[in-house]
Amino acid sequence: MELNVRDELVKEFLDCSSRGDLEKISSMMSHCSDLIDERGETGWTALMLAARHGHYEITKLLLSKGCDTTATNRSGQTARDVALFWGHRHIARLLADGRDGVVHHVLPERETDEADIYFNREFLNRMSEKRTDSEWLAAKRSSPHSVFILFYNLNPLVSPRADANEGEPDVKLCKLKVTSVEELLKQSNTVLIFLGAEKQERRLETDGDGPIAWFALNTEDDPSKLLKVKDPNSFFLKGPMPGLLMLSDNDAGVVAQARAVLAWHSRYGFCPTCGSETGVEEGGYKRTCLRAGCKSLQGIHNTCYPRVDPVVIMLVIHPDGNQCLLGRKKSFPSGMFSCLAGFIEAGESVEAAVRREVQEESGVLVGQVQYQTCQAWPMPSCLMIGCHCVALTTDISVDKNEIEEARWFTRQQVINALVKDKHAAFNIPPKQAVAHYLIKHWIGFNSNL
Amino acid sequence: MELNVRDELVKEFLDCSSRGDLEKISSMMSHCSDLIDERGETGWTALMLAARHGHYEITKLLLSKGCDTTATNRSGQTARDVALFWGHRHIARLLADGRDGVVHHVLPERETDEADIYFNREFLNRMSEKRTDSEWLAAKRSSPHSVFILFYNLNPLVSPRADANEGEPDVKLCKLKVTSVEELLKQSNTVLIFLGAEKQERRLETDGDGPIAWFALNTEDDPSKLLKVKDPNSFFLKGPMPGLLMLSDNDAGVVAQARAVLAWHSRYGFCPTCGSETGVEEGGYKRTCLRAGCKSLQGIHNTCYPRVDPVVIMLVIHPDGNQCLLGRKKSFPSGMFSCLAGFIEAGESVEAAVRREVQEESGVLVGQVQYQTCQAWPMPSCLMIGCHCVALTTDISVDKNEIEEARWFTRQQVINALVKDKHAAFNIPPKQAVAHYLIKHWIGFNSNL
Repeated sequence: MELNVRDELVKEFLDCSSRGDLEKISSMMSHCSDLIDERGETGWTALMLAARHGHYEITKLLLSKGCDTTATNRSGQTARDVALFWGHRHIARLLADGRDGVVHHVLPERETDEADIYFNREFLNRMSEKRTDSEWLAAKRSSPHSVFILFYNLNPLVSPRADANEGEPDVKLCKLKVTSVEELLKQSNTVLIFLGAEKQERRLETDGDGPIAWFALNTEDDPSKLLKVKDPNSFFLKGPMPGLLMLSDNDAGVVAQARAVLAWHSRYGFCPTCGSETGVEEGGYKRTCLRAGCKSLQGIHNTCYPRVDPVVIMLVIHPDGNQCLLGRKKSFPSGMFSCLAGFIEAGESVEAAVRREVQEESGVLVGQVQYQTCQAWPMPSCLMIGCHCVALTTDISVDKNEIEEARWFTRQQVINALVKDKHAAFNIPPKQAVAHYLIKHWIGFNSNL
Repeated sequence: MELNVRDELVKEFLDCSSRGDLEKISSMMSHCSDLIDERGETGWTALMLAARHGHYEITKLLLSKGCDTTATNRSGQTARDVALFWGHRHIARLLADGRDGVVHHVLPERETDEADIYFNREFLNRMSEKRTDSEWLAAKRSSPHSVFILFYNLNPLVSPRADANEGEPDVKLCKLKVTSVEELLKQSNTVLIFLGAEKQERRLETDGDGPIAWFALNTEDDPSKLLKVKDPNSFFLKGPMPGLLMLSDNDAGVVAQARAVLAWHSRYGFCPTCGSETGVEEGGYKRTCLRAGCKSLQGIHNTCYPRVDPVVIMLVIHPDGNQCLLGRKKSFPSGMFSCLAGFIEAGESVEAAVRREVQEESGVLVGQVQYQTCQAWPMPSCLMIGCHCVALTTDISVDKNEIEEARWFTRQQVINALVKDKHAAFNIPPKQAVAHYLIKHWIGFNSNL
């Protein structure tokens, strides 16, 4: 009888490895660590079975627990032989040297790595599957562990960071508890959206509350009186610029999501299809027309969902490779030049938009266009698509309605601006702007030309 | 006196070259071709001056007219020496070998060239500066040379191409004259938008009408009775798919723009900010709230402009580099698998959206993401951003609300599907879809792995 139980356990363990049930394997090993090198009928171990079926995570787990990689099955194959035979090269590599087995250069190499761009930090897991789970959302909305970020006319409540070193972000978002915002939430003109839950720390609270949920709320009436338990030093950031650029990377990522969605609510309260009022659904990610029979209720329409406006922003490189085209708007701070930019139009590709915008604004014709990186820009809800491109012509003819001036700057002039040399001919935007990245990256990638 | 006139002419010619006035140079040479190698006071020719000031187009023009490239100024410099001295490397190269002087590899080389993707052809110049020129627009609207494309419930009027060879597009857009659509244009529920003017052929009509303008109109009432002078074989394409994929590349480009903007008009007739009616402006590229005092009239807001929804579509590559992940929706034709895809959310980067969507739909975690190409997709108005990305994990767990099935396919299976082998395990989308390009391109770029 005792033997049978053990046999059953081994069988189940090996089955889990074949199927790829990581959670079960992990749990079984924590209870019976001696299962690790057990064999089934034809001499196959769990490692061999994971290698056979391409279960990378299980292979990693078994290796980390010190399994025997030299064991062979009745055909004399090790787990690595099995992985190679079945074409799982990344697992074979993992088994060969124990190092992370991801095959490098699966994609052709490019000199531009993904940048950690301001506003792009994904601090929260959006957990979009919870948006339709009204019971779960209601529990989180009243949970004492949930975090609430407050906006007044789309400006976030922040407090000063007294301990910030020079060059560090000055302010931090106020993370409020439900007790602070209870009165505000009762107001009819307050909009509440669910942002997601913290990714990093999987703190399981003592009350079994699960991950910590984050919400954001916006009001267009002064919330000071209704807001409870507040930091006396807290204040609402004035204007989106430059206030929103003073946050930490994590806070900026949260604001990018929250402000973009809240800005949509502030301008899209009515159904664009029939003009009726709308109701908020899905944790703040949907507005549905309240008039029965409205066309927008038949099928799925973008009228009901938050709007994202794609924008191209591009550094135009001179055909000689040693100069770049920068322009300035009247509204820019004195001496600042930046990349040209403009909205992508309906029915237009990224590359076509780059060529059209550069020609419209500066008269310069553009050939090759290359995507570099992108940035969420919550003012109100843009997706900045950053490109490098190469000019075909060099004569400048500025559209004065769009920009005040455009000029070719030499590599040396750009370097002076980047290092903030006192002799610099001009300034470039701060490092939080994707234009800064595009300019800096151009200097970097072929500085030996 | 005669001499003075000639001196003045030479002086003006050289000045134009210095300033970069291509039009004037061109016109002067067509009248006095012997100006080409004339010299100014210090022995500088027009070519040297163009080389000095970096005027690429003028250099090209002078070369094409057979100017003397060996002439030297009083310092013994040729035009090429001048170009090199002043850092205009592309002009120096042009002067050295007469070939197009654009410095190649200004951008780091990439294996992916810009693809000529369906819907992306820019057959028309949008001439957005004319959208606010109501006088010009009105003249074009009634010009007998202008072209009108008619949509009925967003389906374009087309006629069969009897002469089409196999594999070629079956239908062509009906290009109507104003006389055909006059009655339709009088209807209050007809929306008219200006698309632009033909790029290629600069046919100047005898009446001095300038470039040929294109318009598109949409109506939600059957236009058959009001439409005059029509091809008896013409018909409205049924449903966007697969009808819209049967056009020539030029027609597809026109439809991409027209349908996306018209679809916006069909759902955004009311002000989303206050629910009032709106009026069409700027050649159909703006809708303005008709209620004085509406918030949307203060400043610039996206509520007034056509909406473009950015979407990520991605081929997920297995960590071993030899398999890719494809999924199918219930609505797909039997046997068809395609790339995963989803809308980019507010406050999200392209790369973050790729990772989130792949994880939500298939349970697979993604590491590196690489932009490949994009496609305008006018159903109703999406910008498909096509990426390759590399999986970190391989176990699949499908979200049944989103897709029916997802599977890893081997390179050989994908090749069989691409070449439509009769033993193919599945089908992929047609070549007009960006998914097809992403799949084909993956097979191409490292097929020797």
